[in-house]
Amino acid sequence: MTQDHSPDLESRVSDQDHQALRLWLRLLACTTRIEDQIRQRLRQDFATTLPRFDLLAQLERHPEGMTMRELSRRLMVTGGNVTGVVDQLEAEGQVVREPHATDRRSFTVKLTATGRRQFRKWAATHEQWVVELLGGWNAEQKSEIYTLLAGLKSHLAQLEQDERKSNA
Amino acid sequence: MTQDHSPDLESRVSDQDHQALRLWLRLLACTTRIEDQIRQRLRQDFATTLPRFDLLAQLERHPEGMTMRELSRRLMVTGGNVTGVVDQLEAEGQVVREPHATDRRSFTVKLTATGRRQFRKWAATHEQWVVELLGGWNAEQKSEIYTLLAGLKSHLAQLEQDERKSNA
Repeated sequence: MTQDHSPDLESRVSDQDHQALRLWLRLLACTTRIEDQIRQRLRQDFATTLPRFDLLAQLERHPEGMTMRELSRRLMVTGGNVTGVVDQLEAEGQVVREPHATDRRSFTVKLTATGRRQFRKWAATHEQWVVELLGGWNAEQKSEIYTLLAGLKSHLAQLEQDERKSNA
Repeated sequence: MTQDHSPDLESRVSDQDHQALRLWLRLLACTTRIEDQIRQRLRQDFATTLPRFDLLAQLERHPEGMTMRELSRRLMVTGGNVTGVVDQLEAEGQVVREPHATDRRSFTVKLTATGRRQFRKWAATHEQWVVELLGGWNAEQKSEIYTLLAGLKSHLAQLEQDERKSNA
């Protein structure tokens, strides 16, 4: 903390603060707009929802199946919501619940062959949407942002780690 | 659409597609992590929620008051959710409902003096959190991202406009 309260210094600090806030609001607005577009297209073109698509995407990456607890943690939603989504997808024949290999009180959720085929078609279209939505950036700009976001990611990981230490 | 299916071209296209998808997933992950941190700090330090904070922020920018419909549109949540949040904030004396100037069936939500004082304290702390969370970028990098996001924003606005035209 500096004790220098000269107007110049203060206004400089304050400008930097506003820069961060303005940047955060723009980052949030862009992300929200893209997510809204994806949500809307999933509904219109595939009559599905983002939570359902995200759950299928997780299962596609884990062919061995996932427990409800793992799904809930990965998707950052409550267990109750995951149960509702799995129920729907099971009723449609896209996923199946199987007894867990080691934990008898638990079970594993897996994609069915139908679910996998369906998801792969959806995923290919979803990828084209993302290409279109991020089309405001050329390849060089994309790679620039990707690198800059890596820096943000490791900064956030560091903050989260410091916080865990100070809470421990 | 090109008819050239040579392996090189295909793999190049596919690399570009994957670049967009990877970038989108990283952008989404960073935004979500920052939002989670803010959500958690609002709960721990101010015993409040992001929807309540966002609603107060909207009202602070509109001293003339806002209708429920305007709040709902700005906050991109359903009317029912806005009603719940306004009810809570009104019970705490932070906002007040007043009869609408021209529409007798409607009313206007405004910050009380207490609500405004409270929100300004919260907002100053919130801004410091954002400075800390985006601290992985120096001023130059922040300004670079800010400019790149402007390009994304106008691209998204163009896409949304084209879509409205094709739906009209």
